[in-house]
Amino acid sequence: MEISQTEGILAPALTAFTDRFEIDTGRTMSHLHWLLDNGCNGVVVFGTTSEANSLSEAERTAFLDKAISSGIDPGRVLVGTGCCSLPDTVALTRQAVRLGCAGVLVLPPFYYKAVTDDGLFRYFAQLIETIADDRLRIFLYHIPPISQVPFSLGLIERLIASFSRIVVGIKDSSGDWEHTKQLIERFATSGFQIFPGSEKYLLPALQIGGKGCIAALANVCSPLLQQVYRNRQSSKASEFQAEVDRLSAIARKYPLIPALKSILAKETSEPGWRNLRPPLTPLSIEQDEELIGAW
Amino acid sequence: MEISQTEGILAPALTAFTDRFEIDTGRTMSHLHWLLDNGCNGVVVFGTTSEANSLSEAERTAFLDKAISSGIDPGRVLVGTGCCSLPDTVALTRQAVRLGCAGVLVLPPFYYKAVTDDGLFRYFAQLIETIADDRLRIFLYHIPPISQVPFSLGLIERLIASFSRIVVGIKDSSGDWEHTKQLIERFATSGFQIFPGSEKYLLPALQIGGKGCIAALANVCSPLLQQVYRNRQSSKASEFQAEVDRLSAIARKYPLIPALKSILAKETSEPGWRNLRPPLTPLSIEQDEELIGAW
Repeated sequence: MEISQTEGILAPALTAFTDRFEIDTGRTMSHLHWLLDNGCNGVVVFGTTSEANSLSEAERTAFLDKAISSGIDPGRVLVGTGCCSLPDTVALTRQAVRLGCAGVLVLPPFYYKAVTDDGLFRYFAQLIETIADDRLRIFLYHIPPISQVPFSLGLIERLIASFSRIVVGIKDSSGDWEHTKQLIERFATSGFQIFPGSEKYLLPALQIGGKGCIAALANVCSPLLQQVYRNRQSSKASEFQAEVDRLSAIARKYPLIPALKSILAKETSEPGWRNLRPPLTPLSIEQDEELIGAW
Repeated sequence: MEISQTEGILAPALTAFTDRFEIDTGRTMSHLHWLLDNGCNGVVVFGTTSEANSLSEAERTAFLDKAISSGIDPGRVLVGTGCCSLPDTVALTRQAVRLGCAGVLVLPPFYYKAVTDDGLFRYFAQLIETIADDRLRIFLYHIPPISQVPFSLGLIERLIASFSRIVVGIKDSSGDWEHTKQLIERFATSGFQIFPGSEKYLLPALQIGGKGCIAALANVCSPLLQQVYRNRQSSKASEFQAEVDRLSAIARKYPLIPALKSILAKETSEPGWRNLRPPLTPLSIEQDEELIGAW
């Protein structure tokens, strides 16, 4: 059984919380459906933007079950499954494979710092051997500004060489275009799928062999991002990308996750979207008003 | 019911693993008993040195239950309970309180970076309100080189002011003596307990009002550290501290957790102690031989 590959515009979907910091399952699920109906080729359930690392394994497992039961096509879902501990990552990954999800987006174990490439390789090898399922598709999640643990080029090369049918892509949230370019030049020709983690690099990446983007801003402007993607071989694409860049600059003047939630609260007229689970906090009322005024 | 306060020498106990990276419960438990019988006033179960962040919540819960059932006095145990997610931290903390443990050592939520003091305060307030138990005693775990999320002096002050009977101490693993000194000068007089996270600062901290140390090296030289503690008001203390410093310098030439496991493997004649769970890796054979030769 071959799993469909997700390409194009992927949103790391925001998670809605109640005033008591519980997951608002209904609202979050509606958002997933809206994204898939409005410009997203796929969604990432449990990315950084989803505040996934503020959720317990039990919350993640229960939510994913409900989301797939609600009719979301698992072939359009990547599941963020990377935790600090291998057993947690194994459990979440096993569920994603069982549900037929297109793939898993896996952070490196991120508590211990200055770990070796050998240690990270063993972690992924152990994950793959424990899952032991041909359907497993792993996308590496490179986000050194937050994880503080990078995937070096040497490690990526070794993982692809050892597990070519399983380690199939990477989300590059380094924020460094030169790094994304280097990944594409070095690994894209063999079919490895590179997604910049920022909407700003969508068109530049598509033009040299990237597969799309997995970008937080897709939560609030997926139709526009889809215009860039659809028109990637036409001269119109750069106009759409310029509009993306304009919106990106507005949102990124603030802490990004609260800013996106403020925008979504406004667009859906559901103020509950402004809730974040601690340690994250909403924008101040002043920031909120300024952002909404500029958006 | 008043919980006994742990002071003096505390070891963040190493966790033994099998060759298949499973917790070796028997060996780990023997080590805990040995430490408490040989120079440790208390132990920290699930510190950084314990590779706690490479363990799942289920593994942690099961191990702690077994450890207390095996006869370890919970009044001499601090439990590391700080996870990225509040529900996980709540679950582990609730267990520690239920078992009558002396306290919990709580990391800040460490995935998201550049979070605000207000967000961290809300996280701890929510933890305390959810546990809602007068027996709860929290020691803050300040370890910015690894967590990358510090407890600022302002945040510590605010937590003490709001929860003075509950937020009772801190482990300072900044590695910066000036910082430890500042904590002691600012907060010790009110009864707040400050423990440097390095054996190197044991005597200096004791001399100005610190309560002892919670230090990785205690895994392999707790009787010596106890000599410093017992003799803290005598001139002999500095000789013992000099010997601590000598051993500390030897071990810290290597990645510390693997180095301590190599030493323990040698001292117990149990080579299995050299196992670490990925992403951590053992010392190379050459490093191991060099370290054991010098120890």
